[in-house]
Amino acid sequence: MTGKITIAHGGGGTASSDLIHKIFLKHFETKETPDAAVLNFPRDGQLAFTTDSFVVSPLFFNGGNIGKLSVCGTVNDLACAGATPLYLSCGFIIEEGFGLDDLDKIVKSMAETAKHAGVRIVCGDTKVVQKGACDGVYINTSGVGYVPDGLRISPANAKPGDAVILTGYPGEHAAAIITARHELGISGELFSDCAPLNKMIEKITGEVEVHVLRDPTRGGVAASLNEIATDSEVGIEIDETSIIIPPGVQAVCNLFGYDPLYMANEGKMIIILPETQASKALGLLNSVAEGKNAAIIGKIVESHSKKVVMNTTSGGRRLIDMPYGEQLPRIC
Amino acid sequence: MTGKITIAHGGGGTASSDLIHKIFLKHFETKETPDAAVLNFPRDGQLAFTTDSFVVSPLFFNGGNIGKLSVCGTVNDLACAGATPLYLSCGFIIEEGFGLDDLDKIVKSMAETAKHAGVRIVCGDTKVVQKGACDGVYINTSGVGYVPDGLRISPANAKPGDAVILTGYPGEHAAAIITARHELGISGELFSDCAPLNKMIEKITGEVEVHVLRDPTRGGVAASLNEIATDSEVGIEIDETSIIIPPGVQAVCNLFGYDPLYMANEGKMIIILPETQASKALGLLNSVAEGKNAAIIGKIVESHSKKVVMNTTSGGRRLIDMPYGEQLPRIC
Repeated sequence: MTGKITIAHGGGGTASSDLIHKIFLKHFETKETPDAAVLNFPRDGQLAFTTDSFVVSPLFFNGGNIGKLSVCGTVNDLACAGATPLYLSCGFIIEEGFGLDDLDKIVKSMAETAKHAGVRIVCGDTKVVQKGACDGVYINTSGVGYVPDGLRISPANAKPGDAVILTGYPGEHAAAIITARHELGISGELFSDCAPLNKMIEKITGEVEVHVLRDPTRGGVAASLNEIATDSEVGIEIDETSIIIPPGVQAVCNLFGYDPLYMANEGKMIIILPETQASKALGLLNSVAEGKNAAIIGKIVESHSKKVVMNTTSGGRRLIDMPYGEQLPRIC
Repeated sequence: MTGKITIAHGGGGTASSDLIHKIFLKHFETKETPDAAVLNFPRDGQLAFTTDSFVVSPLFFNGGNIGKLSVCGTVNDLACAGATPLYLSCGFIIEEGFGLDDLDKIVKSMAETAKHAGVRIVCGDTKVVQKGACDGVYINTSGVGYVPDGLRISPANAKPGDAVILTGYPGEHAAAIITARHELGISGELFSDCAPLNKMIEKITGEVEVHVLRDPTRGGVAASLNEIATDSEVGIEIDETSIIIPPGVQAVCNLFGYDPLYMANEGKMIIILPETQASKALGLLNSVAEGKNAAIIGKIVESHSKKVVMNTTSGGRRLIDMPYGEQLPRIC
């Protein structure tokens, strides 16, 4: 697929139609292009609805690209509500002059990731802006999922006594982006963790009682735990010894002065559930690739309400504050 | 509301949270900010799902702004599927340095338009890109609606003998944008038709049999009719005498060499239905402000399949082709 995006590709005429058929519909394996898709929805539950725009820079990085990321991000947001993701939309804003070969790779990657996650991309929109009015391509993916009656998973649902599980090692997505952005020589060793987590989550939601699910993206584990502590009006205590930092992530942190707890993840979940059910959940999580390194990293406490405190390896206690912004802009 | 957007506002930390509370949640009258909203959905119908990104330039124009436009566009796409719009998402991509006062106006306008249309904005996302990486603000609105069992409205559903109704005069949105973009002195006379049309459509869908609904946005009436002719494998014949061009729109067309049939509308609907039901539908449409100028502009025919032909005022016949691109980029 050669050539470049022109302003006409966003005009709603034959050029648009041509682009939609040759790239989008080809990969999404559908022939329909209505204004709105009309779809079946289960008649015994509630609807989960979410949206996310992706402006990651660079567009391609070890372990993924903006297309894969856009599907994972929205699928994981639905999974956080305890929902089974069903349908995704995709809205593209593309810069005039963008290579059709790169667009093809991005859309192909979206289609593959959606298939892997078991969701369908059912509607879309393409806008083209003139050269210089966007940075290559921005993607919005919105998603619809199904929440069975009675299931109530929410960041406001953590209770004292609950265990806090993190489903893998933190910081891999941010480290991969930094490496790609600065073209560091260590790029071969660092891969984004970018992955759809809905199937891993479905493994546990039917088996154990889950109180909170949260994917620690922008702001990392630190921001997510602070949000949960605030929304649930509880304290959270985590143990530094239980949180393994991969050597590549640690190297990037040392180089740039970053803290891995504040680094974005795109394939990790924080799971909060009654302590009595934690080992059963861990067994289920550890049995799948996305959760093989899942571990208990802390607990919910009654003291220091709305605050997150870490017991450090040196035996001290450190307040894990809510960050003001993100260490690394345009991480997703 | 003074100040400017900073990179930190998109970082997922306290700066993001502050922005969300002070602008978005204030206008949308909600206190919740989960990753995914969990909502009720009627248990006797299908789900309509649509997405649209808005990159209109300039952001403010006579009759609306990008916020109002983003709600109208998505509500109208749902209405085109015969759906009752229920929920909208909003995804913002904002340029560093963008004025918070302008953002406040845009979000306020979204909230007012959503209220007017009877839909709820239930989830959102905010990304900030550095100065120069977007043109002020881009908005994605995705939408979910409810289609009662048995209702089947589709661009592939036009049948020979059907009447073609246009619910008002064409070209007003595009003319207002051109006027704002070029700062023409005639700005006071031209207003975008930008409006949610769902309530107008609901007036007729229960009363008459509707085959096709289509809002002629990018590419105008010409592009929409061509899409319907292609999808339904029918010919369409329209009469130039029945299509009134407002003087302001005609003035802009004369100045720039545009054809009003190819100019974008944001508050008009093409309605195709059995000829026998057209006068009843017109009566209902003419009783509401958005449809007061609705008129029959043509009919569906068996001949010249997949083509749109206009009987001209001078007694000739003119082929109305599908446009290649849009006369005016970034119209929505």
